[in-house]
Amino acid sequence: MAQAAAHPAPTGQTTGGQAAILRRATIGDSEFDRDTAVVRREEGVYDAELSAGWTIIHAVNGGYLLALLGRALGDALPHPDPFSVTAHYLTASVPGPAVIRTEVVRAGRTLSTGQATLYQYAEDGSEVARIRVLATYGDLDALTDEVRTTALPPAIPPRDRCLGTEAGGDVIPGSSAITERLDIRLDPATVGWALGKPSGTGEMRGWFGLADGRDADALSLLLTVDALPPTSFELGLQGWTPTVELTTHVRCRPAPGPLRVSITTRNLAGGLLEEDAEVWDSADRLVAQSRQLARAPRG
Amino acid sequence: MAQAAAHPAPTGQTTGGQAAILRRATIGDSEFDRDTAVVRREEGVYDAELSAGWTIIHAVNGGYLLALLGRALGDALPHPDPFSVTAHYLTASVPGPAVIRTEVVRAGRTLSTGQATLYQYAEDGSEVARIRVLATYGDLDALTDEVRTTALPPAIPPRDRCLGTEAGGDVIPGSSAITERLDIRLDPATVGWALGKPSGTGEMRGWFGLADGRDADALSLLLTVDALPPTSFELGLQGWTPTVELTTHVRCRPAPGPLRVSITTRNLAGGLLEEDAEVWDSADRLVAQSRQLARAPRG
Repeated sequence: MAQAAAHPAPTGQTTGGQAAILRRATIGDSEFDRDTAVVRREEGVYDAELSAGWTIIHAVNGGYLLALLGRALGDALPHPDPFSVTAHYLTASVPGPAVIRTEVVRAGRTLSTGQATLYQYAEDGSEVARIRVLATYGDLDALTDEVRTTALPPAIPPRDRCLGTEAGGDVIPGSSAITERLDIRLDPATVGWALGKPSGTGEMRGWFGLADGRDADALSLLLTVDALPPTSFELGLQGWTPTVELTTHVRCRPAPGPLRVSITTRNLAGGLLEEDAEVWDSADRLVAQSRQLARAPRG
Repeated sequence: MAQAAAHPAPTGQTTGGQAAILRRATIGDSEFDRDTAVVRREEGVYDAELSAGWTIIHAVNGGYLLALLGRALGDALPHPDPFSVTAHYLTASVPGPAVIRTEVVRAGRTLSTGQATLYQYAEDGSEVARIRVLATYGDLDALTDEVRTTALPPAIPPRDRCLGTEAGGDVIPGSSAITERLDIRLDPATVGWALGKPSGTGEMRGWFGLADGRDADALSLLLTVDALPPTSFELGLQGWTPTVELTTHVRCRPAPGPLRVSITTRNLAGGLLEEDAEVWDSADRLVAQSRQLARAPRG
């Protein structure tokens, strides 16, 4: 985890001497926004630069990539917010230039559906597909206020009793630049893996924030759902858990403040596992649900 | 529900005088196989006929359509089995001719990714997109035998103590041809809706089989995940619950015999709900997981 002292408190308050030097990042002016920016080359085609700041060892984080594709689709489609986004990860992305080609599949009154593919460049300049996304967008502000959810937020200890991901520094070897962008505090009940004592249950829970204090929005939720360590660690498996497919439903525009994330795995079988994530905001609303299919580590 | 007497017992046994006239359908020779057949018109393009036999009132069932697209993709891709299939439902399908256009997005060693779109024809002959699918295929037989699932099969009473969907005949008005193709027996604990007393919990559970006795395979699981009545009925809402997006993971080739299906909804909010389905086979293996985002009925 990045230097905790550099993090503004997630409520927007700063403490002690830091108040003078820290400026809370805002939606539109933050690391996340700068690094997920896309530049329209022509109708439906966007140039992007995959930042080395969102890597784990050498791999670009899948949630960061999803947010980048999500931003391009939000521009290409007539509706602003991702309602359901499915990504299939085809080949490993690397920091550097990329191009996103979008297609409007259907433009409806309340929902629109689009497709986007992110390509990078081979040595001969040809395009290599990295990720294909199929998504339906809408307007979160147009949804009714009705809430009849039976779900409850995950039971996570207060933020100051959770553990920064520096606790797992020895387990994740090498440089992980993304840890400097995120402010993740894991429930002590789900960090046994970092101490060599995985719980054996497929659960991972924690608080999520962006390190520069930017609040969450629908786009950053696409990053949030893939940001915690994989549940496979608590199942006693070390190593990469590469995502095959990841589907995210954004259900509500998140309120300002830190998010709680709960990830569960029910079925590790045949070398594959699913990871179900729920993201809850500070107003106790279930703001996003996701499920991914991933390859289990061999370990 | 269809005439129960016309159904062979799902174990393959027949009883009494029916034994003489009933022939158990097999994979490859069944209503499901005939009605999901596709004819290759040219490379990657398949003609199909949407059967009126899989409709609820006038709407063609989304799971049936998914199986049809899944069959086309299984032919177009180098791998046989759907591992992860996402469908976005664009416009309402009707019985009659259709064309499925596929694209191989990536052909890998163990997994391949493809896209398929089902079109029907407008009066002027132009193609109207009904469903867009993005999917990753593999070979279920190539998976390891390892099972470390923490999930347990749903607690459903024995099949003979569950209720055929004829119990809900008054709730679903009009002709529902699909009920004659399916042999669904609902857990009495989740049929309060049919008696005007919905439980208020977002759960639906039951036994699933094809009425002609065909056993399940990876393809028919795509139908199974969207075949039970929607959980919204038990949440006290009547009317259509149209699917926006449906993602299915097939995790294991199902054993012969009846399937158990459990559907849960945690979050009905803003006029949308998710439905999570688990499908378990007769060998107590979790063979499929799905999640859909649907519009809640107004009722």
